[in-house]
Amino acid sequence: MSKYDIIVLGSGPGGYVTAIRASQLGFKTAIIEKESLGGVCLNWGCIPTKALLKSAEVFEYLKHAEDYGLSVKEADKDFTAVVKRSRDVAGGMSKGVQFLLRKNKIDVIEGFGKLKPGKKVDVDGKEYSADHIIIATGARSRELPSLKQDGKKVIGYREAMVLKEQPKKMIVVGSGAIGVEFAYFYNSMGTDVTIVEYLPNVVPVEDEEVSKQLEKSFKKSGIKIMTSSEVTKVDTSGKGVVATVKTAKGEETLEADILLSAVGIKSNIENIGLEDVGIAVGRDKILVNNYYQTNIPGYYAIGDVVEGQALAHVASAEGILCVEKIAGQNVEPLDYGNIPGCTYATPEIASVGMTEKQAKEKGYDIKVGKFPFSASGKASASGATEGFVKVIFDAKYGEWLGCHMIGDGVTDMIAEAVLGRKLETTGHEVLKTVHPHPTMSEAVMEAVAVAYGEVIHL
Amino acid sequence: MSKYDIIVLGSGPGGYVTAIRASQLGFKTAIIEKESLGGVCLNWGCIPTKALLKSAEVFEYLKHAEDYGLSVKEADKDFTAVVKRSRDVAGGMSKGVQFLLRKNKIDVIEGFGKLKPGKKVDVDGKEYSADHIIIATGARSRELPSLKQDGKKVIGYREAMVLKEQPKKMIVVGSGAIGVEFAYFYNSMGTDVTIVEYLPNVVPVEDEEVSKQLEKSFKKSGIKIMTSSEVTKVDTSGKGVVATVKTAKGEETLEADILLSAVGIKSNIENIGLEDVGIAVGRDKILVNNYYQTNIPGYYAIGDVVEGQALAHVASAEGILCVEKIAGQNVEPLDYGNIPGCTYATPEIASVGMTEKQAKEKGYDIKVGKFPFSASGKASASGATEGFVKVIFDAKYGEWLGCHMIGDGVTDMIAEAVLGRKLETTGHEVLKTVHPHPTMSEAVMEAVAVAYGEVIHL
Repeated sequence: MSKYDIIVLGSGPGGYVTAIRASQLGFKTAIIEKESLGGVCLNWGCIPTKALLKSAEVFEYLKHAEDYGLSVKEADKDFTAVVKRSRDVAGGMSKGVQFLLRKNKIDVIEGFGKLKPGKKVDVDGKEYSADHIIIATGARSRELPSLKQDGKKVIGYREAMVLKEQPKKMIVVGSGAIGVEFAYFYNSMGTDVTIVEYLPNVVPVEDEEVSKQLEKSFKKSGIKIMTSSEVTKVDTSGKGVVATVKTAKGEETLEADILLSAVGIKSNIENIGLEDVGIAVGRDKILVNNYYQTNIPGYYAIGDVVEGQALAHVASAEGILCVEKIAGQNVEPLDYGNIPGCTYATPEIASVGMTEKQAKEKGYDIKVGKFPFSASGKASASGATEGFVKVIFDAKYGEWLGCHMIGDGVTDMIAEAVLGRKLETTGHEVLKTVHPHPTMSEAVMEAVAVAYGEVIHL
Repeated sequence: MSKYDIIVLGSGPGGYVTAIRASQLGFKTAIIEKESLGGVCLNWGCIPTKALLKSAEVFEYLKHAEDYGLSVKEADKDFTAVVKRSRDVAGGMSKGVQFLLRKNKIDVIEGFGKLKPGKKVDVDGKEYSADHIIIATGARSRELPSLKQDGKKVIGYREAMVLKEQPKKMIVVGSGAIGVEFAYFYNSMGTDVTIVEYLPNVVPVEDEEVSKQLEKSFKKSGIKIMTSSEVTKVDTSGKGVVATVKTAKGEETLEADILLSAVGIKSNIENIGLEDVGIAVGRDKILVNNYYQTNIPGYYAIGDVVEGQALAHVASAEGILCVEKIAGQNVEPLDYGNIPGCTYATPEIASVGMTEKQAKEKGYDIKVGKFPFSASGKASASGATEGFVKVIFDAKYGEWLGCHMIGDGVTDMIAEAVLGRKLETTGHEVLKTVHPHPTMSEAVMEAVAVAYGEVIHL
């Protein structure tokens, strides 16, 4: 039986990052993966979708070349080539993880790992043991009883990424990041897309003004949006899909070739031996403390299988923290109130901290500032005037409660707000930080200036 | 004679921002402009060049559509339309400034302002007085004796922005931001471009590794680069321009249609009455203290006419500080060591603080971290793997001495470093700030991790 210091179960952005950090800290480490190194994020999530979206972005430029003094004849997309590019990018990244694991002398064990009592893992009949076992098995697309996925006409994100043929019509159920990104991508490629969202706003976790802006932008680009609506029935007996949608105004039927179900995720906690070991689980999540220790000593869990935002960067941060704690380092628990979230459609969305509504509900007296990109010189020069930066400060102590952005490049701009909030900046300090001109990032400074009554460009 | 609290001379990004802030603070304010509202930045600098560069960026996508699974036939540019778009953007921004000045009840006085003793300004024969006069007359393209600009074949940035015809061959003398941006733009449009730089590296104010990367990228895109070279003679007697270039290997002659001189700027301090008032000047700059007060009470100067980086955002910050001090606010002098600088070619460049060489020369014991975008998932998905983020920390106290970036979108990413430095962050705090995945901004976190021996993705 092979013995390790640390065994990591699952090689997604939680698992592989954890294993690398563990190895850096001097632990003899192994990682178990049943499928492709890099997990969903690299192979079926973050990375390949960004590749698809890049093709969509470039295709939009092709279609609007005249706006920039340019011209093209017969701009077209090759759907198969677009998908192939995305797969190649994912394949390259997965090989990159393989390289990193080898470089860090981490043993990769291929197969399905099942936890055993006594800090052991069984992988397809072979047993391994470790002082510390870290569960990072991630999650998969959630299936609603009314939206059973057949993988052909009613599909999840995984199939949506590798369709052999581009659908003419598509229904996207759910308007979180995944739903919105696919809706944008397929609409851009020329598919007729309808989003059905159960809640009153699209991207419902975002600030309401961001939701409204996205809805406006998406409608302008031709995407149909039905909010406060629910798919109650799906009929796949015919050639395509017929969905029955309950709306405020009554029932409607939508026809499409494909229905993408993007209604959230489900943790991969079945059949991995949690019950055999006695690891406590609650509401689809493994229960852990601030350092990701389960109730059974020597067993830990990080990433989508535990509470907290189900995001790649959260999983990575949790894994690093978990092994640094095991190594005896003096670590600070993760601040789940300062986790950025991003959606990569056009316009992009990025946010951190409380929405205006949340801040009010918590009883804060707030100062709000919003600066539209229509007033930004860089945005005008780029032809990207859609969107805004919105900031929320506590009126009493000046704490930066939240930052919400929608527009070109904001997924890279949010880092300023995350770092500023971590360093407990005041609005005044952001205002007096000289932002380069002309950039989109000036909008952060200007939004703060709006909050404090000192805006120049509005 | 009209009497104001504050008169601002010049309506560039220094002047108009100063006037708006002055008005916000309750001052009766006038602004004098001899040409177009917004000055060089809006009309002949930052903004219209970004518009040109956006067309170039989109044109590159058109030319490389196949890389993204797309196809076009006959991708072409209409040079006149590209220039027209740029002029329209500039025109729109200038109208925006007009709107802002009116909204803030600032009197706009058209004409050439000349300072008079006794806190007066003569504008084409009419006299105005104020308690405080702020000089913000900016700068223009510097002329070298060996490179006299005739505005036709030997030109400055201003003419380069509105050429009637696209040159087939162009020599760009000087590789600061202006030279580099035009070189990139014209090369992208199909002009045969040669850069001649006097110093050993292009973009000589940047960190040497950034210079090397830009040189590599530019050469790959077909731009010829001659460093440690000097144009000693220009002959415009024939059809085009013949430049004699002194290089380390001897003399060469270059032929072209147009030579763009981008060898720096010259302050606009002539004929504005400085001598009449007795305002002290040294080395092409008006002498001021930390609050932009000249030696003569009631006269102030900000922007390109004073020491400090000749950048729009510096001028704006100086102007705001200047009037806030006049208003009796408790202001902190500007930290010129924390001013970001940006160059908007492809790849973009952005930096703040000391280069590695400067840090070493100052005697710091440093920790350096460099993370290449080739190891970034987002960069791979975007097909933008050129470039890197480089960070420099003081090994003893952990101070973030410098941050140097080259690559896609870095001009918006530098704000994080500027704010972090302002808030006196440590490397550890940047490292423990959860950056969203997948973004280019993760490279900042990873570069810091390299500096501290904790990098995951290398």
